[in-house]
Order: sequence, then structure tokens, then C-alpha cells
Amino acid sequence: LGQAFAAEAPLSSWNPGPSKTAIINYVKAVTRSDSPDYIPAADRIAVFDNDGTLWAEQPMYSQLAFAIDRIHALAPQHPEWQQQQPFKAVLEGDLTTALKGGEHALIEMVMASHAGMSSEAFTELVNQWLATAIHPTTKRKYTDMVYQPMLELLDYLRVNGFQIYIVSGGGIDFMRPWVEAVYGIPPQQVIGSSLQVSYDYNDGKPQIIRQAKINFIDDKATKPVAIHYHIGKRPVFAFGNSDGDWQMLQWTKGSPYLSFAGIVHHTDAVREWAYDRESKTGRLNKAMDQARRDNWTLVDMKQEWRRIFPTVK
Amino acid sequence: LGQAFAAEAPLSSWNPGPSKTAIINYVKAVTRSDSPDYIPAADRIAVFDNDGTLWAEQPMYSQLAFAIDRIHALAPQHPEWQQQQPFKAVLEGDLTTALKGGEHALIEMVMASHAGMSSEAFTELVNQWLATAIHPTTKRKYTDMVYQPMLELLDYLRVNGFQIYIVSGGGIDFMRPWVEAVYGIPPQQVIGSSLQVSYDYNDGKPQIIRQAKINFIDDKATKPVAIHYHIGKRPVFAFGNSDGDWQMLQWTKGSPYLSFAGIVHHTDAVREWAYDRESKTGRLNKAMDQARRDNWTLVDMKQEWRRIFPTVK
Repeated sequence: LGQAFAAEAPLSSWNPGPSKTAIINYVKAVTRSDSPDYIPAADRIAVFDNDGTLWAEQPMYSQLAFAIDRIHALAPQHPEWQQQQPFKAVLEGDLTTALKGGEHALIEMVMASHAGMSSEAFTELVNQWLATAIHPTTKRKYTDMVYQPMLELLDYLRVNGFQIYIVSGGGIDFMRPWVEAVYGIPPQQVIGSSLQVSYDYNDGKPQIIRQAKINFIDDKATKPVAIHYHIGKRPVFAFGNSDGDWQMLQWTKGSPYLSFAGIVHHTDAVREWAYDRESKTGRLNKAMDQARRDNWTLVDMKQEWRRIFPTVK
Repeated sequence: LGQAFAAEAPLSSWNPGPSKTAIINYVKAVTRSDSPDYIPAADRIAVFDNDGTLWAEQPMYSQLAFAIDRIHALAPQHPEWQQQQPFKAVLEGDLTTALKGGEHALIEMVMASHAGMSSEAFTELVNQWLATAIHPTTKRKYTDMVYQPMLELLDYLRVNGFQIYIVSGGGIDFMRPWVEAVYGIPPQQVIGSSLQVSYDYNDGKPQIIRQAKINFIDDKATKPVAIHYHIGKRPVFAFGNSDGDWQMLQWTKGSPYLSFAGIVHHTDAVREWAYDRESKTGRLNKAMDQARRDNWTLVDMKQEWRRIFPTVK
């Protein structure tokens, strides 16, 4: 029933417009068995960025909010943080100062809040946080800050035989606990940045332990690299929202099959946020230029999305 | 029809015996919906070593034979190899001397033969080699050196809703081109050792280029680590044949679900090869001790396998 419905009325939160038309035309062209552009189901690999593409990323990445809450929770065990940046500023609620240290400060915050525990313990922390944390401006749960039109796009692709992967700069282990319930994407189809982990036999109760060392940063030119390691096939369909997705979109558009590159353009300052070339989070500049030059699908959120977020029950 | 047949007469190349009984009892226990040990299909993750578990690994790993053939093919472009080990010995057909340099020599041979080209070019080389290369003792193609009873086990698990991954010390990109045709396992369910790769925009014809640097060695304690990165779920079923699989088997047996650990014990010197504790390739020592101590399934190839290799058409 779900499949039949999706096949009959796909993308109902998308207004009629160039993006909806391009998506439907593409999917028909590659799935009709008599089409010259037919792609066998095994090669229908679709990749989606997460932050700013499937869920909101303003005023800060959700994972950064998680790190900040963890730092507050851990502070009693770390009296030295009262004098030590970026932790001092985090504990004083002064995020601007905390982030002045740039990438180095961000990595310190992630290490302090994401490492030194088993994989199961970390999953439990993520689940607990998502069950209670509230987005600072919308007062919704973070998992309700997903884009309804993109949920419908995921359904539409699945019904049409696509295998969908997330390819995100966010932490692979931060996403895996909840993506199946929220997006219908199983944990093994999530690619992201990661910390190093190690195997510990632990007297017959083996564990994977999270280390305070970066294993992989999944962003820009390393997105195609991560796709190669994890999937080993070239995608035919890709969606992103920032220059961090630029190379993934290029790599997809270079497929020998008919391919699709889409970009969510954040144009709706009323219902969501409006930002592109000058934004610190989710900067969209070079990828937008290539989208316009090469006729990629640039989704105008304000014009093309009838609804942004799902109705919360 | 294929599924119905497999469900009625599974594992037909397995003689009645403890291993066949253990496999069937396990699968029934975790798939019957009224069983106390029932596992939801989404969590039925099975992991298999490749060399010595799904296909033969004697007298040397197939991938090493590939590297040697590549070194011969590339030698005209490398006159310096005439004086330089391990290449000099390889070109003289003296593998013993070539491998005296241990792991360092092996890595040099892999770098020289597997790097410096696009991912597509490498896939093409692997496919060409497998189409023509002949195993030195059996005179079969390498892809005919797979174990018929294990092919039937893969089918049996698939019919019962398991998602099957290869977790091999062998090269991930050496396996991916052929595992779908030979084992029915798609490329994205292959985990292995890898070289570093880089993304190259290449004037609008993007490529993944293989670098002469190790990215990951998937062996022993890094097998559970690789499983964590790629799958993010703990397996419930694992099969290996050597101490290189020991930690993967332990990690699987530590699952909160009812779990299964199996080891192919190479006991048949007539139809295949007999080796275990003292073998250089595929040494099985500590894992065999734990298998006996903890009642893991130790498959006696000679006694329990009616047939070793498939009939070649």
C-alpha cells in the first residue's frame, strides 16, 4: 500500500516546478525498462549529504550542540576546563569565543565529548540526547528538524529501486543510531567522518573503544574517496547543499550512466534560514556556480517546497 | 524456484555431521518468529573471510599470483627491477627469495602492481587477469577455486534473510569486481585491505586514483574495527579459517543475540590442502584452541564436505 501510494502521488510536498519535474523525469528515464537510459537496479546508487540537505544545520550543526551538552555534562570531572579554551568559553555559554580557535577548537570539543568509551556507550549517549534535546530556535526535537520534501524524495527513490547512502561530514557514529527510524536508511548505508576505534577483548566481553584521534574527515574531495571505500560503485544520483558536497556531485555527474545532481538552496528566511555564498555553516558558492553552468537541479526551498518540516504528532 | 529449492534441500554438498547440524539448528533458532532466540532480519549480519574460507589460498594467495603476473607485465617499463629485490627474484621465478623480505617485500610488490592508475583501470586489470589466469596446481581458473559447500551456505543464509559481508585481509578493490558474479555478494558488502585513493577532477572527467600508500590492513584485531566502520552493527554469524579471523569470530560471539562462529579446517590433503598450526599461509592455531574450548563449529573439510570445488561447465 505504501509503495503503491508513493508511486501514484510522489513528492506531494514539492510544488510543481523545475526541481520536481527534473527528479521525476530522471527517475522515469532510468527505471523504465524500454528507456535508452535504463539503469539496472544494482547500479542505482543514490548519495545524500545530511546537514542542510536532509535536516537543518542552523544556527549550528546538531552534532555541535550535542558536543556542547556533553562538555557541560562532563565538566565536573574536568576542573581544568574552567581555565582552558575552548572549554572555558563553552561552559560560559560563549560559543563565539569557543569557535574562535577554528577547526582545532572544534576537534578538541569533539575529542573531549565523543571519545574514551565503547561504541555501545556512545550510541546510548546519542539516543538519550536526541530523546530530550530541543533545537534552540524552533523548540522542536532535532529529529523533527528533517525536511519533509526530502523524506518524500527518499521514499520515491526507494520505491524505484535505488539504494540510498548518507555521505556526510558529520560523525558516522553520531548518525547511525537514528537514521533508520528517521530516514529509513540502515546504519550500514551511512558514511561519515570518524574517530579511530580499537578492538578490546575485555576478558571475553569484546568491545570497540573510541579513541581521541581522527580517523577520517568526510568532506569536499574526500567524499568521493569515502564513497569509493564504502560502496565501490559510482553513484548515479546525488544531493547536497554546500561546497562540501561539490566533489561528490561532480563525481556522480561523471558517471557513464545518466546521472542527477541536486542542491538544496536555502532561500527561505521565514520558514527556515536563508544563506549561501557568505555563510560559515553550509557555504554554497562554487557548487552553485557549477550547478548554474551545467544545469544541475538547484532547489529553491522558498518557491518549490510546500512544506519544510513534518507535522509533529 | 531457487529459493524454494534451497529451503527444502539446503547444504547438499555437506555430509551429515556436527557442522551441518549446527548451522541448520542455528538458522532455525534465529529465524523462527516464535523462537526465544529470534533475530530481526535487519540484524542478521553475517561476515565471511575470503582466502581459505570461500576460496582456496594455497600454494599462495590468488592476489599474490596477480601481483606477480603484473610485475612480469610491467617489467619492460622498469629496467631497474632487474637488479632490485624483491622484483629481481620475482622476474627470475624465485618466489622463495622474493618473499624473504617478509611483509616489506610483499607490500613493495603490491604497491608496484596495484597503484598508479584509476579505479576503473584497476578493475579492468583484475577482470582481464581472472578471465585468463590458471591456478598452478589445479589448472582451474581462480574463480573456479571456490568452495561449493560455502556457496551453498551463502545461499542458505540469504534465503533466510541474512545480509552477507566479506571481511578479508585481501584487497577490497581486488575482490569487488568479481564477488557478485561468483558469490552473489554485491561490491558494497565487501570489506578488505585498501590502498589510499585520491579524487582527481581531471578536467570534468573525475577519477579515483590509486596511490602507492597503505590505507588499511584488514587482519586480526582490525577486522572488528573494519566491521565497525563499514557496517556499524555487530555480526551474529561469522566464518573464517585462520588466526587472522580470530578476533572477528570473538567479536561476533560477544553479540547479545545468539551467535555463530565457524572455522573451515583444511584437513584434506588429497582433494585440497591440509594445513593448520604450522602453515605460513592461513595459520590456524589460537583460533582453533578457542574453537575447541568454546564449542565453536570447526568444519573438518575431509569428513564433512562431500564435494570441495564446483563442477566446472
